[in-house]
Amino acid sequence: MLASEMIVNHQDKASALLQADAEKILKLIKVQMDNLTMPQCPLYEEVLDTQMFGLSREIDFAVRLGLIDGKDGKAILDQLERELSALHEASLKK
Amino acid sequence: MLASEMIVNHQDKASALLQADAEKILKLIKVQMDNLTMPQCPLYEEVLDTQMFGLSREIDFAVRLGLIDGKDGKAILDQLERELSALHEASLKK
Repeated sequence: MLASEMIVNHQDKASALLQADAEKILKLIKVQMDNLTMPQCPLYEEVLDTQMFGLSREIDFAVRLGLIDGKDGKAILDQLERELSALHEASLKK
Repeated sequence: MLASEMIVNHQDKASALLQADAEKILKLIKVQMDNLTMPQCPLYEEVLDTQMFGLSREIDFAVRLGLIDGKDGKAILDQLERELSALHEASLKK
């Protein structure tokens, strides 16, 4: 396998892993969104914050390794932040 | 550059980054150890826990990417855990 193929391989794998981890957080957010009428698990914000922190450290690590571009990493987090604030808004209006 | 060199390059870079991040946590622990007589910053355990969680997510990510071996990653965390419990012991005896 060519060196360039190998880098792409690592880069593809890194962004696939990050997307999958982001997807897991999105699912957590959706579960909360779908169950707004239920008493909110008090720790769900804590859980989401911890997961977001974990993902941000993975993204930072991947960027430092040169496996993803900083702006792509930021885009992943920004999208999740938008979902989080939509969830927060919805839970306030409940 | 050969494909094999490229992989090694990423693997070396990944473990160098993880060692450097572990070193930062070690310094945080040493600062606390050196200042045991001072009133302990109440949040230092929280800060160290958060940093350890962040590092464990980076290590997990590097292992999933195939850039480091699981047992090497575990060794980094185990060493820090030993330092943390030594710090904890010392602060109890203060």
